[in-house]
Amino acid sequence: MDERFAEFDLIDLIASKVARLEPSCGGVGRLRTGIGDDAAITVPGGATATSVDAIVEGVHFDRAWSPPDAISHKAVAAALSDLAAMAAAPGEVYVTLGVPPDTDRAWLKSLAEGFATAAERFSVVLAGGDTVTSPVLFASVTVVGHAPQDTGFVLRSGARPGQLVVVTGSLGGAAAGLWLLSNGPGAADGMDEGLAEALIGRQLRPEPQIEAGLLLGAAGAASMVDLSDGLVADLGHVGRASGVAIEIDSTLVPVQPGVPEVVASAGAETAAFVLAGGEDFELAVTVEESAFLAAREGLAAAGIDLTAIGTVASGEGVSVVGPDGPVEVPAGFEHLA
Amino acid sequence: MDERFAEFDLIDLIASKVARLEPSCGGVGRLRTGIGDDAAITVPGGATATSVDAIVEGVHFDRAWSPPDAISHKAVAAALSDLAAMAAAPGEVYVTLGVPPDTDRAWLKSLAEGFATAAERFSVVLAGGDTVTSPVLFASVTVVGHAPQDTGFVLRSGARPGQLVVVTGSLGGAAAGLWLLSNGPGAADGMDEGLAEALIGRQLRPEPQIEAGLLLGAAGAASMVDLSDGLVADLGHVGRASGVAIEIDSTLVPVQPGVPEVVASAGAETAAFVLAGGEDFELAVTVEESAFLAAREGLAAAGIDLTAIGTVASGEGVSVVGPDGPVEVPAGFEHLA
Repeated sequence: MDERFAEFDLIDLIASKVARLEPSCGGVGRLRTGIGDDAAITVPGGATATSVDAIVEGVHFDRAWSPPDAISHKAVAAALSDLAAMAAAPGEVYVTLGVPPDTDRAWLKSLAEGFATAAERFSVVLAGGDTVTSPVLFASVTVVGHAPQDTGFVLRSGARPGQLVVVTGSLGGAAAGLWLLSNGPGAADGMDEGLAEALIGRQLRPEPQIEAGLLLGAAGAASMVDLSDGLVADLGHVGRASGVAIEIDSTLVPVQPGVPEVVASAGAETAAFVLAGGEDFELAVTVEESAFLAAREGLAAAGIDLTAIGTVASGEGVSVVGPDGPVEVPAGFEHLA
Repeated sequence: MDERFAEFDLIDLIASKVARLEPSCGGVGRLRTGIGDDAAITVPGGATATSVDAIVEGVHFDRAWSPPDAISHKAVAAALSDLAAMAAAPGEVYVTLGVPPDTDRAWLKSLAEGFATAAERFSVVLAGGDTVTSPVLFASVTVVGHAPQDTGFVLRSGARPGQLVVVTGSLGGAAAGLWLLSNGPGAADGMDEGLAEALIGRQLRPEPQIEAGLLLGAAGAASMVDLSDGLVADLGHVGRASGVAIEIDSTLVPVQPGVPEVVASAGAETAAFVLAGGEDFELAVTVEESAFLAAREGLAAAGIDLTAIGTVASGEGVSVVGPDGPVEVPAGFEHLA
C-alpha cells in the first residue's frame, strides 16, 4: 500500500520545515512541539479562533490550470481569510492531504512544499499534518489565530442600523480569472496581457487580508466577513447573524481592472462576477461612519483601500440598487464551470 | 450544484447541537462562539494539543460494513486517541466532510448526527465544521485538547533505559474484527457469537483511552503513544523520539478473547493481529517500575487494566522475544484487505 510511503514523505517534508521542538527550548511562535508526536502543543496567550476548510480536485481546483504550489497556496489563503475576517493574528496551520497512489512524486513534492511556502509567506507556523491515501486529491486545512492584544475578535453579529458597509480592495477578479482559465487567456477580446495575468493570479494565488483584518478590528469595525462565497451571499451571513438588512449601491462597488472586458466577452452580467463571483478574499465590514472616516487615511497609507458601498438598515435581507433600480443577483457561483 | 445544499445541511445540523453562543454569555466548555461565524472562538486555559486525522471511503472504511454513525464515531475516536496519548483533557472537535452529490440524504444525516453523538459521548465540544462536494466520501477531523492542571502533556520522547513498557487493555481485537467483517462473522470456526460481536465492535466503534491517558499522565508516565498503527510500529515511534531501544516479550502482551480463534481460522500468525494489527487505540507508556507499581491498583479500580510487556534499553529499534526466541513482526497492517 502506498499510504505509508506518501504519509512519511509529507511528514518528513513538513518536519524539515518545522524544527523539531522540545517544550523546554522555546518554540516557534506559540508552537512548543510540532511534528513527531501524537499532537502539536501550542501555548495560546488568550482566546483563539479556529477554522477548517477543504478543497477537492475537480470541485475546487483543476490540475490542468493550477500548478501544485498554487493549489496549496490557495488552500492556506482561503483558510486564513476566515481568520482575517475575525481580526485574528496568524497562529498555526495544520494540513491533511488525501493523495491518489499514482500521483507523480515530483508534483506531490511541489504541492507539499507549497504549504510550507504559504505558511511562511502568511506568517503562520506549519504545526502538523497527516497524509492519507485517497482516490481523489484533497487538502483539508485547519488554521488557528490568536486574539489581538488590545481588541478582541470581530464577529459577524455586530452590524447595526446606520453603519456603513465597507469593502477592502476590488472585486470580481477571481471569477474573471476563472473565466479566463476556462476559456483561454486570449478569449477576452482586446484585453491587455498584464490585466489578464493579474486576473488569473487573483484566482490561483489569492491573498488573505490578514493585516487589513487586524487594522480594521483596531479601527472599530463592528462586524466583519471575508468575501469567499460572493459579496451578496457573504453580506447575507452578516445580515442574518446581526438581525439587520443590508443595502448596497452597485455603482459604488470597486471592480478590478479587466473584469468589465471579461464580462463583455463572456456575454454575462457584471453582477455575476462582482456581486456573486466569490473567492476574491477581500473583507467586508460594517462600521460607524465616524470610525470609517477616522481610519480610512491610515489604512490607505498601509496599502489598504477602503470603499463604502452601502449601509446597514433595520429589517432583513441584502438588497442591491443600481443606476436603473433594483439589481437581481445571480443565486450562486459555481467554482468550476 | 449540490454543494451548498449539503453544506448548509451539515452546518444546520451541527448548529442544532451546538447552541449559538455569544462571547458575553459564557459558552460550552472553552467554546465561546461556535457555528455561525468565520471561525470558532475558544479560550484555552493553558497549553493546547492539536491533532488532525482523516478517513476516506474504500481506504479506511467500507459502507457495506460500517453503519454511518459508526464511521463518524470511529473518525472522532481515532482523532481523540492521539489526544489521549498526550494525557490531554478533551476540548473541541472540528469536522470537514467531503460528500458525493448522490449520497443518500438519510444516510448522510445519520453520519452527521454520529459526529454530534460521538462528541457528546467523549466530552468534546463539536465546535465547527465544513462540508464540500467530493467524488469520494471523506471526513477530516481536527481535535484540540487541553493540558491537565497539575501535570503537563506526556510526549513520545520521555522513554529512558530501565523503564517498563506498559499497555492498557488488550490487543488484536480490531484486526480480528476486520477479518470477521471481511470474511463473515461465522467464518471463525466454533467461535462464540458474543466474542465475535465484541471483536467487530472493537473494529467499528473503538474507544479512545482518554481517562486512562489522564490518569497515566498523573501517575508519572514518562512517554506515551496510542496504538493505532500496531504495537511494534507505534513503539518504534517512541524509540525514535526518545533515542532508545524497546524490548517486548510477546508472551506478556494481553490478547483480546476471540483473537486466537480468528488467528487459527485465518491461518495467520498471532503477531500479524496482536503486534502489527493496529486500530485497537489502547495506550502504551514507558514508566519507572516504582511508579507503575504505585499506580496499578488505583487504575484497576478505575477500570483500566495495565500490563507490563517489556522494558526500555539503550540502543535503537523494537525487538520482540517469544517462547521460541526472536519474533519476526509483519511489516505493516492494511486497513482494508
